[in-house]
Amino acid sequence: DDTWTVAGHTFRSRLIVGTGKYKDFAQNAAALEASGAEIVTVAVRRVNVSDPNQPMLTDFIDPGKVTYLPNTAGCFTADEAVRTLRLAREAGGWDLVKLEVLGEAKTLYPDMRETLRATETLANEGFHPMVYCADDPIAAKQLEEAGAVAIMPLGAPIGSGLGIQNRVTIRLIVEGASVPVLVDAGVGTASDAAVGMELGCDGILMNTAIAEAKDPIRMARAMKLAVRAGRDAYLSGRMATRKYADPSSPLAGLI
Amino acid sequence: DDTWTVAGHTFRSRLIVGTGKYKDFAQNAAALEASGAEIVTVAVRRVNVSDPNQPMLTDFIDPGKVTYLPNTAGCFTADEAVRTLRLAREAGGWDLVKLEVLGEAKTLYPDMRETLRATETLANEGFHPMVYCADDPIAAKQLEEAGAVAIMPLGAPIGSGLGIQNRVTIRLIVEGASVPVLVDAGVGTASDAAVGMELGCDGILMNTAIAEAKDPIRMARAMKLAVRAGRDAYLSGRMATRKYADPSSPLAGLI
Amino acid sequence: DDTWTVAGHTFRSRLIVGTGKYKDFAQNAAALEASGAEIVTVAVRRVNVSDPNQPMLTDFIDPGKVTYLPNTAGCFTADEAVRTLRLAREAGGWDLVKLEVLGEAKTLYPDMRETLRATETLANEGFHPMVYCADDPIAAKQLEEAGAVAIMPLGAPIGSGLGIQNRVTIRLIVEGASVPVLVDAGVGTASDAAVGMELGCDGILMNTAIAEAKDPIRMARAMKLAVRAGRDAYLSGRMATRKYADPSSPLAGLI
Amino acid sequence: DDTWTVAGHTFRSRLIVGTGKYKDFAQNAAALEASGAEIVTVAVRRVNVSDPNQPMLTDFIDPGKVTYLPNTAGCFTADEAVRTLRLAREAGGWDLVKLEVLGEAKTLYPDMRETLRATETLANEGFHPMVYCADDPIAAKQLEEAGAVAIMPLGAPIGSGLGIQNRVTIRLIVEGASVPVLVDAGVGTASDAAVGMELGCDGILMNTAIAEAKDPIRMARAMKLAVRAGRDAYLSGRMATRKYADPSSPLAGLI
Repeated sequence: DDTWTVAGHTFRSRLIVGTGKYKDFAQNAAALEASGAEIVTVAVRRVNVSDPNQPMLTDFIDPGKVTYLPNTAGCFTADEAVRTLRLAREAGGWDLVKLEVLGEAKTLYPDMRETLRATETLANEGFHPMVYCADDPIAAKQLEEAGAVAIMPLGAPIGSGLGIQNRVTIRLIVEGASVPVLVDAGVGTASDAAVGMELGCDGILMNTAIAEAKDPIRMARAMKLAVRAGRDAYLSGRMATRKYADPSSPLAGLI
Repeated sequence: DDTWTVAGHTFRSRLIVGTGKYKDFAQNAAALEASGAEIVTVAVRRVNVSDPNQPMLTDFIDPGKVTYLPNTAGCFTADEAVRTLRLAREAGGWDLVKLEVLGEAKTLYPDMRETLRATETLANEGFHPMVYCADDPIAAKQLEEAGAVAIMPLGAPIGSGLGIQNRVTIRLIVEGASVPVLVDAGVGTASDAAVGMELGCDGILMNTAIAEAKDPIRMARAMKLAVRAGRDAYLSGRMATRKYADPSSPLAGLI
Repeated sequence: DDTWTVAGHTFRSRLIVGTGKYKDFAQNAAALEASGAEIVTVAVRRVNVSDPNQPMLTDFIDPGKVTYLPNTAGCFTADEAVRTLRLAREAGGWDLVKLEVLGEAKTLYPDMRETLRATETLANEGFHPMVYCADDPIAAKQLEEAGAVAIMPLGAPIGSGLGIQNRVTIRLIVEGASVPVLVDAGVGTASDAAVGMELGCDGILMNTAIAEAKDPIRMARAMKLAVRAGRDAYLSGRMATRKYADPSSPLAGLI
Repeated sequence: DDTWTVAGHTFRSRLIVGTGKYKDFAQNAAALEASGAEIVTVAVRRVNVSDPNQPMLTDFIDPGKVTYLPNTAGCFTADEAVRTLRLAREAGGWDLVKLEVLGEAKTLYPDMRETLRATETLANEGFHPMVYCADDPIAAKQLEEAGAVAIMPLGAPIGSGLGIQNRVTIRLIVEGASVPVLVDAGVGTASDAAVGMELGCDGILMNTAIAEAKDPIRMARAMKLAVRAGRDAYLSGRMATRKYADPSSPLAGLI
């Protein structure tokens, strides 16, 4: 069957969903359920660990059934990101983590210099970092050499919903990678997710496209289907395009 | 549940598949099965009705379980198309039919003048024509007034696999129509089908994208999923796009 | 030198500009001047012919130096359009005219059925109609057979500025035509005009893109340059595209 | 008048052309002339400096009239690039240089880590490096901080002619930059160059699009016009787009 494996963990679902922007944890859990995702990503710096009177995400999404992927959202330096993930490991034992080191608040583009530094440090400390990155095929290879267990290029700015802007770079990254490649940001609707998979990506991570849909639960289902559709289309080997028409039925020899 | 109705017939699947270009009827039937389609379209002028030694499509695809939609592929005038469908009705009793009147062989674009004439004639004779047409919002309304029970604009030339070229016209046709709208040609891969559904179409008809994939059965499944994904995405109300990034997690108030 | 000819009239400029939406006639005249256009199109039904106290366009744009192309903007039937152009001919002697028969006010798409009828009538009465039409290659041929001296498909809805939505249809129309083809609507900025010319069109007609720019005069100049650029690029025979990079300098044999 | 300035040098032309792939130096010089470019970029490692029997580029393109911009094409490390430019400075006194440090031969994508290192070194040694880079807004800012006097993101892989793949990143780089931004690779035809300028870039560098056109001289002229067209369109402030049509002439109050 069609699975993918990252740092020794094998998954059937190729969709990873987030935990921001939902109305509440119940809606988040329902969307996760509808999406079929086996991995949920959580901003370590936003997790409530201190106030027992506030609701806990783990009460809604069972860490025994769903893989929690701690991420470093909100970190703007390698040091900050590394410290954040050390805390996460101490608290919950996670070593499969998602690294993001942001360059600035307006674009939320990664700072690739800091990202590379953090990846090296994390790998040396035994983490398995899945790494948010620019759609730069050379930087992607360098991340891999530095110890990234998955390459996660953005398709468009985080939360923009603009869809995958550059199919050439995503294709080149996929062709060059020997670890899984997942599109990490920019998906706005189902066809965007399908496009990412048709380019040969191993999966898609998204948050806003589901959380900000008018009906997040239905959109979560749409994304589950779109990722599977794109994956199947990629594996099927699509038809070549033609500049002119080509009849489904031979025009010669008709009755 | 989410169904659509054309001329009194209600369907759950929003995918219509063809019967050209497959290796053989067995492969065609397997692709149909994988696609989940409830309607299959057949070129009347290519159907074997005379040679009992040749295989029959109906031996592979059961007309009792799947709706046969006779089409006029290969007809270049209204008269030819009308005659073809009269024959089909006499032979099999069909009145839900697919009309296509081609303008020329290179582009396989419809001749809209002849198409309008044929639609009127067919409607007057009690047919329920689903009509292949240019992606022209005004012509679409005229077809509807002439008796078309479904509007089927091309997304790109038949068999080209180029994907939906003009999202503006498809959207305008959907907004103006009071009968179902289905994209009828040009889909090349799964995301193309999702795009059509996200524009609000009621369904997609395709043939080459499935039949010419390296693995037609898997592509048929991809298309089933893509059409559902696009439909769900349309009904969910997608997020608005943004020019800049927007964090999934508020950057303020981090630990 | 590179000229084009329509109904016996030869022009060097491949840009046709309109006369709507400008602040005043002076601005319109200045934009025309900057655009280098030799043809200006005027809505017959809006021309002031009765009130001598109102300014006259002809006081600003000299009909002795610029070809006036009367158009039927605002006509929704063939009869209305034909009557309008008969009036124009009686008043000014024009027989080179621009026909547009609109289908409805929201999309301003042409009604191709009425457009074809009007084209035939006009041709029979000795007019030379340049015809606004849908981007439908078969309808384009029918217009030509009916007597159109130029085919003028829309690139996007009039006044939308969305740019050319469907490069496939424009290319197919150009390949099939034996009269000039001009993109008639939808251009929003300079690159849109260049794209139209690169597809092999003989010219571009635009109004809103110039009139609604913050600086219409400068945009008029941009359009003049863009049309020339696109024309030159078309005639030069552009490079083929490549899936991968190709060095400008051979990497072997370097110092 | 509309000029741009890099490291104290002011230019009127916003087009920079290359010196690879031409039939011979004479054709190269003629294309340069037709392009109106004031800067020509030359691969230092390919320049013939030793064989007096071979033709010299400087015999065809006068360094007294055109600014030579030495580039590091073919360099895959910072050290190699820095050494190459030191040689160039010793030989010809250039300090305005174009840095490119490639990551690998297939994509010719820059190695941004090495590129940043080289930029720092060059700036420290008094060079004024214009820097080829990935279309990564954060890396662009880091280059600027490291001493780049111009940011030169690729639009698509070198020599691919695919056109600008990601308008979002180019726009973000332009918005963030306080030095000139020039698109450095990927342009295939005139409209691509116009698009780059409409995004607010200060200029465009190209080689293959001109050299591999069937008629390089005419394409050079096309590019000159396209760059000017895009610049004028950018400065004019283009119209907003609309989802629906908008008549050039008010439909009310017609005669």
